[in-house]
Amino acid sequence: MNKKFFAAEGAFDEINDSNGKINIGIGTGSTTTIFINEFLPNLKNRINTIFSSSNESTELLENLQFEVSQGVPENFLLDYYVDGADEIDKNYNLIKGGGGAHTKEKILAAASKKFICIADDSKEVEILGRFPLPIEVIPFAEHSVRRNLESMSEKITKRSFFSDSGNIILDMHGMLISDPEKMEAELISITGIVEVGIFAKNKPTSIKIGRDSYYESIDC
Amino acid sequence: MNKKFFAAEGAFDEINDSNGKINIGIGTGSTTTIFINEFLPNLKNRINTIFSSSNESTELLENLQFEVSQGVPENFLLDYYVDGADEIDKNYNLIKGGGGAHTKEKILAAASKKFICIADDSKEVEILGRFPLPIEVIPFAEHSVRRNLESMSEKITKRSFFSDSGNIILDMHGMLISDPEKMEAELISITGIVEVGIFAKNKPTSIKIGRDSYYESIDC
Repeated sequence: MNKKFFAAEGAFDEINDSNGKINIGIGTGSTTTIFINEFLPNLKNRINTIFSSSNESTELLENLQFEVSQGVPENFLLDYYVDGADEIDKNYNLIKGGGGAHTKEKILAAASKKFICIADDSKEVEILGRFPLPIEVIPFAEHSVRRNLESMSEKITKRSFFSDSGNIILDMHGMLISDPEKMEAELISITGIVEVGIFAKNKPTSIKIGRDSYYESIDC
Repeated sequence: MNKKFFAAEGAFDEINDSNGKINIGIGTGSTTTIFINEFLPNLKNRINTIFSSSNESTELLENLQFEVSQGVPENFLLDYYVDGADEIDKNYNLIKGGGGAHTKEKILAAASKKFICIADDSKEVEILGRFPLPIEVIPFAEHSVRRNLESMSEKITKRSFFSDSGNIILDMHGMLISDPEKMEAELISITGIVEVGIFAKNKPTSIKIGRDSYYESIDC
């Protein structure tokens, strides 16, 4: 058993303790993959509709015979969104999007009543920013955006693939994000930036931290 | 001669009064079309590089044998961006994007030293918002975005075409935008919104208002 498994178990327990049919969104990454493979099959008869933040997770879900819905319908709120994080600070702000899917992740988190974040304890940090901060950018704006970001980070790198929406992903390295909410708003306001990997406006409602032999459940 | 012609003449005069080779971005719309067809040929030997905000304007430019550059290169600032507006308020904030190209328009405006706005005097308003405000949205987020916008406008409609980036365009009707800068930041911060048609952060540096028999030049 490892820490990621315990974190995933925490999400299962919270959902399993609730009643009735649920609509659920599923994120992307190694901890989420454990949740999908080890725990989601046991929730199958509870699930009404299921959404996925990435092609990667959609494939895993389809392997388990889940039928993944495309696009969130009108006036529809998901009951749960379950996803990992790359960094979690003391105030429960997150950096997400190592996998480059943070835009869809944020859309699902924003459309959900509860966002359960699952992560092993290596993701806990004092201040966000050691993990490269992913930024989704309209290709036409790459260089004007880079010019705006240059003064804010040590180094900017570009992923070798495009996002699901056909945009490029830049990573900002060596950041020190003491005010995540302000930084999120500031970055989003730069023309050409579609979304950033800071989750301060869309914080989780609970976090399950996987430790050596158990999970800690935090209400945010 | 009409008012749009005088407005376009104002942009020509400002550029013609400068010296040396220039890099220029061209917007979209009826007044810009007059600028392209009636005035730009006379600036041809001054132009080093030319950019366009839409396929529509690119086609007009290519008909005149201009070679339109794709994407703005690294560390590159345009000298001028010339474009129209759908509404201009007393503080020189704009609504733009009736043509659905406001994202690229904003990227070009942000990458330019000078943004010359050309418009006939019917575009002058006390408060922005009678003209439908265009919002570019990631398709996956359409309904969660609509939910966020519902309380802010009388009616929301959807264009029948996609943006150049493959996104949908919603129009917010019956707005009363008394604080354009705040509204722009607020809308952009909604997850799934790529860009909005308010130009408050990227105001023009000068406006040429076409009146009955002349243009008025305003430094912003």
